Amino acid sequence: MPRGLKKRSRKAGLPPGTLIHIGERLSDTTKISLIDYDGEHLTEKNIQSVDELRIFKDKPTVTWVHIDGIHEIGLLEQLGVVFELHPLILEDILNTDQRPKMEDLGEYLFIVLKRFCEACDEHNDITSEQISIILGPGYVISLQEKEGHLLDPLRERLRTAKGRVRKAGADYLAYSIIDAILDSYFGILERLGERIEMEEEVLVNHPAQSTLQAIQHLKRDMIFLRRSVWPLRETIAALERSESALIQDATGIYLKDVYDHTVQVIDTVETYRDMLSGMIDIYLSSLSNRMNQVMKVLTIIATIFMPMTFLAGVYGMNFRHFPELEWSWGYPLFWIVNLAVAAVMLIMFKRKKWL
Amino acid sequence: MPRGLKKRSRKAGLPPGTLIHIGERLSDTTKISLIDYDGEHLTEKNIQSVDELRIFKDKPTVTWVHIDGIHEIGLLEQLGVVFELHPLILEDILNTDQRPKMEDLGEYLFIVLKRFCEACDEHNDITSEQISIILGPGYVISLQEKEGHLLDPLRERLRTAKGRVRKAGADYLAYSIIDAILDSYFGILERLGERIEMEEEVLVNHPAQSTLQAIQHLKRDMIFLRRSVWPLRETIAALERSESALIQDATGIYLKDVYDHTVQVIDTVETYRDMLSGMIDIYLSSLSNRMNQVMKVLTIIATIFMPMTFLAGVYGMNFRHFPELEWSWGYPLFWIVNLAVAAVMLIMFKRKKWL
Amino acid sequence: MPRGLKKRSRKAGLPPGTLIHIGERLSDTTKISLIDYDGEHLTEKNIQSVDELRIFKDKPTVTWVHIDGIHEIGLLEQLGVVFELHPLILEDILNTDQRPKMEDLGEYLFIVLKRFCEACDEHNDITSEQISIILGPGYVISLQEKEGHLLDPLRERLRTAKGRVRKAGADYLAYSIIDAILDSYFGILERLGERIEMEEEVLVNHPAQSTLQAIQHLKRDMIFLRRSVWPLRETIAALERSESALIQDATGIYLKDVYDHTVQVIDTVETYRDMLSGMIDIYLSSLSNRMNQVMKVLTIIATIFMPMTFLAGVYGMNFRHFPELEWSWGYPLFWIVNLAVAAVMLIMFKRKKWL
Amino acid sequence: MPRGLKKRSRKAGLPPGTLIHIGERLSDTTKISLIDYDGEHLTEKNIQSVDELRIFKDKPTVTWVHIDGIHEIGLLEQLGVVFELHPLILEDILNTDQRPKMEDLGEYLFIVLKRFCEACDEHNDITSEQISIILGPGYVISLQEKEGHLLDPLRERLRTAKGRVRKAGADYLAYSIIDAILDSYFGILERLGERIEMEEEVLVNHPAQSTLQAIQHLKRDMIFLRRSVWPLRETIAALERSESALIQDATGIYLKDVYDHTVQVIDTVETYRDMLSGMIDIYLSSLSNRMNQVMKVLTIIATIFMPMTFLAGVYGMNFRHFPELEWSWGYPLFWIVNLAVAAVMLIMFKRKKWL
Amino acid sequence: MPRGLKKRSRKAGLPPGTLIHIGERLSDTTKISLIDYDGEHLTEKNIQSVDELRIFKDKPTVTWVHIDGIHEIGLLEQLGVVFELHPLILEDILNTDQRPKMEDLGEYLFIVLKRFCEACDEHNDITSEQISIILGPGYVISLQEKEGHLLDPLRERLRTAKGRVRKAGADYLAYSIIDAILDSYFGILERLGERIEMEEEVLVNHPAQSTLQAIQHLKRDMIFLRRSVWPLRETIAALERSESALIQDATGIYLKDVYDHTVQVIDTVETYRDMLSGMIDIYLSSLSNRMNQVMKVLTIIATIFMPMTFLAGVYGMNFRHFPELEWSWGYPLFWIVNLAVAAVMLIMFKRKKWL
Repeated sequence: MPRGLKKRSRKAGLPPGTLIHIGERLSDTTKISLIDYDGEHLTEKNIQSVDELRIFKDKPTVTWVHIDGIHEIGLLEQLGVVFELHPLILEDILNTDQRPKMEDLGEYLFIVLKRFCEACDEHNDITSEQISIILGPGYVISLQEKEGHLLDPLRERLRTAKGRVRKAGADYLAYSIIDAILDSYFGILERLGERIEMEEEVLVNHPAQSTLQAIQHLKRDMIFLRRSVWPLRETIAALERSESALIQDATGIYLKDVYDHTVQVIDTVETYRDMLSGMIDIYLSSLSNRMNQVMKVLTIIATIFMPMTFLAGVYGMNFRHFPELEWSWGYPLFWIVNLAVAAVMLIMFKRKKWL
Repeated sequence: MPRGLKKRSRKAGLPPGTLIHIGERLSDTTKISLIDYDGEHLTEKNIQSVDELRIFKDKPTVTWVHIDGIHEIGLLEQLGVVFELHPLILEDILNTDQRPKMEDLGEYLFIVLKRFCEACDEHNDITSEQISIILGPGYVISLQEKEGHLLDPLRERLRTAKGRVRKAGADYLAYSIIDAILDSYFGILERLGERIEMEEEVLVNHPAQSTLQAIQHLKRDMIFLRRSVWPLRETIAALERSESALIQDATGIYLKDVYDHTVQVIDTVETYRDMLSGMIDIYLSSLSNRMNQVMKVLTIIATIFMPMTFLAGVYGMNFRHFPELEWSWGYPLFWIVNLAVAAVMLIMFKRKKWL
Repeated sequence: MPRGLKKRSRKAGLPPGTLIHIGERLSDTTKISLIDYDGEHLTEKNIQSVDELRIFKDKPTVTWVHIDGIHEIGLLEQLGVVFELHPLILEDILNTDQRPKMEDLGEYLFIVLKRFCEACDEHNDITSEQISIILGPGYVISLQEKEGHLLDPLRERLRTAKGRVRKAGADYLAYSIIDAILDSYFGILERLGERIEMEEEVLVNHPAQSTLQAIQHLKRDMIFLRRSVWPLRETIAALERSESALIQDATGIYLKDVYDHTVQVIDTVETYRDMLSGMIDIYLSSLSNRMNQVMKVLTIIATIFMPMTFLAGVYGMNFRHFPELEWSWGYPLFWIVNLAVAAVMLIMFKRKKWL
Repeated sequence: MPRGLKKRSRKAGLPPGTLIHIGERLSDTTKISLIDYDGEHLTEKNIQSVDELRIFKDKPTVTWVHIDGIHEIGLLEQLGVVFELHPLILEDILNTDQRPKMEDLGEYLFIVLKRFCEACDEHNDITSEQISIILGPGYVISLQEKEGHLLDPLRERLRTAKGRVRKAGADYLAYSIIDAILDSYFGILERLGERIEMEEEVLVNHPAQSTLQAIQHLKRDMIFLRRSVWPLRETIAALERSESALIQDATGIYLKDVYDHTVQVIDTVETYRDMLSGMIDIYLSSLSNRMNQVMKVLTIIATIFMPMTFLAGVYGMNFRHFPELEWSWGYPLFWIVNLAVAAVMLIMFKRKKWL
Repeated sequence: MPRGLKKRSRKAGLPPGTLIHIGERLSDTTKISLIDYDGEHLTEKNIQSVDELRIFKDKPTVTWVHIDGIHEIGLLEQLGVVFELHPLILEDILNTDQRPKMEDLGEYLFIVLKRFCEACDEHNDITSEQISIILGPGYVISLQEKEGHLLDPLRERLRTAKGRVRKAGADYLAYSIIDAILDSYFGILERLGERIEMEEEVLVNHPAQSTLQAIQHLKRDMIFLRRSVWPLRETIAALERSESALIQDATGIYLKDVYDHTVQVIDTVETYRDMLSGMIDIYLSSLSNRMNQVMKVLTIIATIFMPMTFLAGVYGMNFRHFPELEWSWGYPLFWIVNLAVAAVMLIMFKRKKWL
């Protein structure tokens, strides 16, 4: 079953906007952290109750609320009240089998992205985690399924006021989060590339049915990645072209840069797919080749020994009148003839390049 | 024959708009039920004659007429009179091999959808049932081929005034029906996913010609689903973009949500198709592998016994002058030589990884 | 050679607009029939000379001229004079390897369609016949390659004033002709569907090289159908979108209906193609399977008899010192050993599921 | 190497607009012929020096300059001066590996087309020749790589004032040249169709590796044709849609006709490709079938003779106590048993349909 | 791993616009050369410090700054200051796994291209080098990863004032650089075409598993080329359509010419891909053919010798009552029968065309 589709049918019959967590629960705890900053000051704190966020929301500073763990439905409902989010948006956050997408709701933008983890579960599969971003006027809310270190460098940059991020607005912050997620894709692709190279070497040296299964496994990983990466491109393109007042003109070139990255990721995924298809061809032809090898051995053996066995059978016959048997040099002659026949055969096979 | 095409040719030569039921008759009875509601009141009753509907049609409340069983042509004609429907629309309702589509006739919208049933007939095939929806000002007519429980949760929500549906208009009701149909797709896909996984396991452990047939069967199911699901996307998109006055702006975001669901369904169907193609490759290569295995056994047996049989033949010859036969240790030597040859062969095969 | 391309090169070097019949001549006679009608009256007669048509052309009634057999070039030229048709249009009528198309020449619309005949020639191939329709103000001219019964029901409806056709204009008449042609496609598709099902059964039970050829034959039929059906869709779509004054608004919904039918035909053709591809896969894998079967038989026989033959050879040797030969229970022991070896082999093959 | 790419790299490093002939030189002589005409008069002469053309260029008549052989760079440069052609256009004329294209340079239109020759070189390959057409106000210049008879019928029509061409303008002349080129495609396609049919017959009766090579050769020819024919469609479409004042409205319908022809050519090429793919499938399965045949013969022989040989070996053993050997009817019994075994085997094979 | 992706993940977590060199470092030195010219004068010098460029930048002449070796980050930063380049542009210059692209930043255009080197690394792979071009008002900056002779002919043309380049502006210079890069593609394609032809010959004469690997290697090269060449087309098209004031109208036709070249390159790459696919088909069927050959030899040998060996075994039996053994012409008869059987078999095989 495609990963992420699990439990989707639990929603059948419920009214739209009903908050039910869909997908595997990746974390049991929920943690809300807040960073509130402008060019000069930065406040960082852990939040216990969503109500604390009200004060920050309307301040002229940029407010970044990051939530790790999304299964606590009550908390999400409160968030919906404080930030006036549409119930369908809250439903989308909980429904972790979303495709990447961007929605402009006027008051705020809603962005869904995926990050990937390679060889993270027991089957060595690629798994994905949904990251939702809400970009409103002066605030960014990011929600992640489980705690991770993906955004730590961004936090550090905010604290040390490194780069452009402290001087720019909420849209640049949202961009930075998206950029961080996309940067993580390249690591995944590099490791997949290494695995493909490894299988390629195995394929050339010791092809086996398990090699094919490994290739098919990688191919399926590519299907999985593709499924997320193509809509990602549309998402980023929609963001870039968006005429929302929430995105400043100066951020446009950064979004274009992210767009170029997604195209590069797609390119790489497609290249991998082509490579894997080629490897399947090589595997199948190596099967035929080995079969040819086996058959040649059999044919050579049969071609050499069948005539000789026949001859031995002939001189084992019990005819009364059998002149050769009486010849004193009959037996040595038999060997000479046989060896000659075998030699001729071997030379012929050599010529046909079967040996 | 593709399911649903049956009996289509019965219509050849008849004037357009002639009402003839096309497709398998899934039900023998016809049942009309009516729910009429606004924020405060809800009337629910079974209807005997279509004329009863006239009074409800023009009331400011939302009127939902649901018809199970569509083969009674007289009833449909009456419906056409009461709600002023175009004859071609009535024809489309009866013709159950329609593709999903949306048509804006100004006065009302006509929507055709499919629901699916997996493993419902004797061949374990996916079967489909056509659901037609007519959305007019203040009323919704839904027509289903046979009675089912698909819309029961929606009725319950109407009765208990749960969710947004009682407060919203006829367009939201139509949306809710569409949403219920689409939710049912996920259950089908999950079960198909499980069957694919099952076949995959069989494929790895005991591949047989029947496995291929099962895979091809699933693949054909995918073709069948695809055929309905792609036009579904266009249908929903047309609905979302529609500028009909019948659809209020507030419903737009809900239709967008349904659209996202159809895209997810398409994604899953395409992923399944890719998986099934990969499985066919694995099956074919497993055939080659088994052939290799069989041929290796034959070659090993022949390579070991042919030389030995030749040697036995040699010492069965009746040459008069045959020194070896006289040797007292001739016979034991024969066995020693033979066993040595066999051992050398076996070591060689071991090295070639044939054993 | 693709059907219909025949004799096309005869035109090379001739000026455009030269009237030469291209394609197989399907009929030797030419018959012109006329139906002239309005809501109240209907005149029907056979026409000897094209000049007779002049009077009808300018009457306010709807005039339908139907011509069976198109090879009489003189007649066509006269027609061109009377109805002021462009020479290239006349050329297109004669050139029966046209793709379906619609051309708006301002004064009139020119529509080319194909009807099909399944299993009509000696090779059991699908053959096609070109039907040209000219829709002018108040008249429709339809030209068919050979006489047929396709349009009889339409004539009957005109005579009996059944359906909408007598009340509507020339555009509705043209639509009715197109609809009749398209309805005939469904019969073809049903019969092809039955042939596919039949081959499928043969494939599962007795696959043979002839099955593959039958599948390829059907596949080629699909290529042939596809070639006509895809441009048909464009043609009907162009007609529907056309802003020609010759097509009244009320006819739009009927053309939309025809358009839906063409999409359904395309869908079915594509589904058949997918089914046939799957059948080729099954056929190829059944070949491999049968090979596996043959090889297993050979390997089992060889594996059982080669060791036994070797042993028989051993005890046929003529060594002087050969203790076993002297044993009184030597011969029975030989059989016991042999049968034991064979039994062990058979059990092993049973375990490997080769038997 | 794809035909036409040869010598392309000779241009690397040279300034754009440098006139160098690229491609194979198909002719050694250059011949300029002129036809100047209007409705009443026609002048025809061979031209020695390009300067002679100046007088004709500005006359109100239509001037057709045809050049056979394009390698004389000096001549082309003069032409560029007289008709004020852009250096890049001259470069394109010399560079014979152009794709078909149309360029509107305001003062004149530049059109590049290909004509084909089937089985013209020593490899039986399809070869192509570039024909460039320049359509200016009142003149047409056509340039062909080598002299040929392609345009003779057009010249004849001009001389005899047959058809519309003498009355129409330069644009109709250009159209007539294009039409003549396109008409020649149908002859090529018919001959290719015949070769495909021939190979198909060989394939069914005596498939061999050489058949596959012939099919692949034809397939490559299709790739080659396709490469020219697809851009041809764009070219003609661009010409048709062109709003250049050089093309009169009345010529539009003729260009539409040519456009239909190109679509037909594309259709045929694609159909051939599909047919060739199907033939490769048939070839590959015929290989498997023959292998099956060979293996069945081997298996039948082995299955019949191995048990019999074993039995003969048994009665050749030298056990002292061997009761059967003493039986007087032992030998006849041996044959009876053997023949019975063989008969049973043969019946079994018959049942399995191996014989 | 796809070439060029290496070390991409080093950037994860860093703020956008951070200058880090990504990709293999192809050169260790950095060299800046300047050519400043107008119609009359030309200054050429090597630059030590970027500051020297300030004076040239604002002169009315055309200034061409060419930099070989891009890894010196400090230098790039200075360049960014002097020419007011956006940090993301500098980042793109350093990031050598960019796809070809064109960006219009208002003040200047930024163009990324690739040049290729065939068989340049130890694996005989195609390698690529990134060339970045910045076209500003009156200046062009080109940056190349390592020193090369690609642009030498252009420099020579500038010095000798050959062609149009000295008279035209900076946009024509940029075009000339792009044209030089594209011209180099044709050389690569020709050499690849030769390698394909070579492999084709090997394939027909001595197909081996290594042939397949060579074909797959070439196929992968095509994937690599394709990945760069398709975006190249978009890039050039964007440049051509660009409404930037930096590109004069007169340059449009030159860019159109370059665009035609890229389409030709794409065509060739696609043709090569098709050819390579056909070669894989031929390879696989040659494997089957050889297998057929091997099996026929085996079957012929077995079919001839098995019956003969059986017969020899029969007359080696020790039945007491064995009349044939006593016949004086028994032994010669045995040979006659055997030779007759063998002859019949051989004739049969001849008829079946197995010999």
